[in-house]
Amino acid sequence: MDECIFCKIVRGEIPSVKVYEDERVLAFKDINPISPGHTLVIPKNHAENIWDIDEQDLIAVQCTSRKIALAIKKALKIDGIACMQLNGRAAHQEVMHYHLHLVPRKADGPPLPITSWTIKPGDMEEIKERAELIKAAL
Amino acid sequence: MDECIFCKIVRGEIPSVKVYEDERVLAFKDINPISPGHTLVIPKNHAENIWDIDEQDLIAVQCTSRKIALAIKKALKIDGIACMQLNGRAAHQEVMHYHLHLVPRKADGPPLPITSWTIKPGDMEEIKERAELIKAAL
Repeated sequence: MDECIFCKIVRGEIPSVKVYEDERVLAFKDINPISPGHTLVIPKNHAENIWDIDEQDLIAVQCTSRKIALAIKKALKIDGIACMQLNGRAAHQEVMHYHLHLVPRKADGPPLPITSWTIKPGDMEEIKERAELIKAAL
Repeated sequence: MDECIFCKIVRGEIPSVKVYEDERVLAFKDINPISPGHTLVIPKNHAENIWDIDEQDLIAVQCTSRKIALAIKKALKIDGIACMQLNGRAAHQEVMHYHLHLVPRKADGPPLPITSWTIKPGDMEEIKERAELIKAAL
C-alpha cells in the first residue's frame, strides 16, 4: 500500500525504532507512547484489520507478541501489560494497518482509556533506550 | 484449577451463554458487557496470562477470535471491534485465566476505558439473543 504509514515503516521509507523483525512481522516502538515501553507489532503484509488479516500473519503477530511481552516483563519493571488491537475508526483505530499495542502497566498507573487516548509524542532517547533493553531480553 | 471461575465455566459447573466451543477454546458472552455483543474467548487449559499460555492455545484463541469477530460483524450492526487482552491486576485483569475481550463498537459509542471500566450486569435475555445471532453467523 503506497500511502500506508506502517507499510512505509516496513519498507524503511520512514524511520522507526525496531525491537524485532522477521519475514512476516515487525515490532517497533510507538513514538506516542501511552506508557513507557509501549510497543507495536504488525504484519509486514498490508491488512487493514482483524477481518482481513491473513491467518498465518495473525499467528505470526500473536506468537511474536507473546515473546515480546515476555521480554518487556524481563527488561522493564512493570506489573502488567494490556494487549489492545483496535478495528475500525469507531474503535479508535488511527492507522488502517492491523497493529497490536503492547502497553506496559505499573500498579500505580493512571486509568488507561482506549477510545479517548490523546496522542502525545514521547522522548525519543528514552524510547530508544527501552527498545535496547527489550531487544536484549528477547 | 479448582477455584478458577473460567475453569468452572469450561467444566459446566457455572452456566454460561456459549457462542463457540472446540477441544481447545471456549467463547461465551460477558455477562457484564461493556457494549452489546461483548464476547470472551478463552483457552480451556488454565493459563493465567500471555506470559504462561501455551503457544498452541494462544494460536487457537486468536484464530477463533478472528472467526467470531467476522460473525459479530455479520450479525450485529457495528462499526468496529476492540480486541483487548489484559495481563495482571495493574492492567485491570479481573479473572486470572487468560481471556480475550471482543468489544463491538458503534461510531457514536461512549469513550471506552480499559483500566477503569465498571462492572455492570447486562440484560440476560438480550445477551442470549445476541449470542444466537452471532452463532448463526459463524
